[in-house]
Amino acid sequence: MSGPIKEYIKHYTLTAPECSPQAIMPLTLLAGRVIETATYHANDLGIGYARLLADGKAWVLSRLSIEMRRWPSVSEEYTLRTWIEGFNRHFSERNFEITGLDDEVLGHARSIWMAIDIKERQGGDLSMLDALRDTVCDRPCPMEKTRRFSPVGDTADYESRYRFRYCDCDFNRHVNTLRYIELIQNRWDMDFYDSHRVSRFDIAFMHEAKCAQEAMLLIRDDGDDNYSAEITIDGEAVSRARMAFTDYEYKQL
Amino acid sequence: MSGPIKEYIKHYTLTAPECSPQAIMPLTLLAGRVIETATYHANDLGIGYARLLADGKAWVLSRLSIEMRRWPSVSEEYTLRTWIEGFNRHFSERNFEITGLDDEVLGHARSIWMAIDIKERQGGDLSMLDALRDTVCDRPCPMEKTRRFSPVGDTADYESRYRFRYCDCDFNRHVNTLRYIELIQNRWDMDFYDSHRVSRFDIAFMHEAKCAQEAMLLIRDDGDDNYSAEITIDGEAVSRARMAFTDYEYKQL
Repeated sequence: MSGPIKEYIKHYTLTAPECSPQAIMPLTLLAGRVIETATYHANDLGIGYARLLADGKAWVLSRLSIEMRRWPSVSEEYTLRTWIEGFNRHFSERNFEITGLDDEVLGHARSIWMAIDIKERQGGDLSMLDALRDTVCDRPCPMEKTRRFSPVGDTADYESRYRFRYCDCDFNRHVNTLRYIELIQNRWDMDFYDSHRVSRFDIAFMHEAKCAQEAMLLIRDDGDDNYSAEITIDGEAVSRARMAFTDYEYKQL
Repeated sequence: MSGPIKEYIKHYTLTAPECSPQAIMPLTLLAGRVIETATYHANDLGIGYARLLADGKAWVLSRLSIEMRRWPSVSEEYTLRTWIEGFNRHFSERNFEITGLDDEVLGHARSIWMAIDIKERQGGDLSMLDALRDTVCDRPCPMEKTRRFSPVGDTADYESRYRFRYCDCDFNRHVNTLRYIELIQNRWDMDFYDSHRVSRFDIAFMHEAKCAQEAMLLIRDDGDDNYSAEITIDGEAVSRARMAFTDYEYKQL
């Protein structure tokens, strides 16, 4: 035995049907790949879905930050590498590096995971995983940690309503991470994405949203292509996020 | 050289984050896997995205039918096998078999693909692929072919409106197959899916829908858990579908 696999690596190729209308990787796909590789690694380490279920718990993503220098384009190969930066009885910090050919670093991601008690719907204690402290890896993650999120509320300059439906919900029977991201991304139109790409995205999940609940999306323009977002239900924030864009020129293939 | 790979096979494991709220594979994920394995096989055969782009064309899904005896459940391994039943200058017919452990047949899918001329937005001629006639495979697909779709229009007993947004659109810069499927599936609530699962799904794409267009979803109850669906824009059908359900009992894990 060589001990736990501290770094989990998976190779992908970006297919045409997966691409955004700009023929590059969509933010939601990368967020999905981050969740997927975290899942594979946790399963390999014996701390995955099956292990937590034995204690009536399930993993839930609490915070996610993604910072990309360049997004993979159609048919491009890319690699995700994930490792655990640290954990305690309340949460686990897991980082990611996204590389292209010749180990070109395309970007990084940081994530914070908590356990939810399936029946009580409250944060679950992770201390049963304490024996896994030697999975912690000292590989650096050269992106800034997720900063605090400021409320949007009355300072919003854009708002829209959306009722969560069946396909917005996942295994944990609450609204899926990727749907929150889509809801925020949909604030902008096709022309905007033809001239802007996401450079950094941060999101925090504060309360569960359920099927059939009506949400309000609030967005504030913070200037210089930075935006703050808040999703509320009955006036209470369930999620807060930040989007940062940089200039981009879509060229028709 | 052993000639073209007539059957393309890919193995998957259903992860927890991919599951539906009923802890089984969602219809949209299977549709995505069907499109993905078709893409991998076409790329291997040299008739994929890159080949069509050389002629200013792109593959678009025209019809899809899925019939499932049983859906994979969380952490279950499953395999997709795809092969070409036939093609001509207008379209290509590609079939799929979904199996579980010990080659248990879980279901099948049938698909019809056309080429779209990227600039003209019209059906493109596929006769440049004619040399590939020896990729056609005589493996049988024991599911009924896609039957004609009947209009819903005035016979609808359910309707709702939806405006397509940025994240509903894909590489071809039109509304994505999976979004049409979700839009239809969202007609039913969580309780319904706790007691019903999809047994067969058929869809035909008739016209392109674009970002920012407002669609009307029309559904008709045809009895015995069979439903017809139509998505219209300005009164014109852009897609027609059928859903068939069978009884299911969701048991909380």
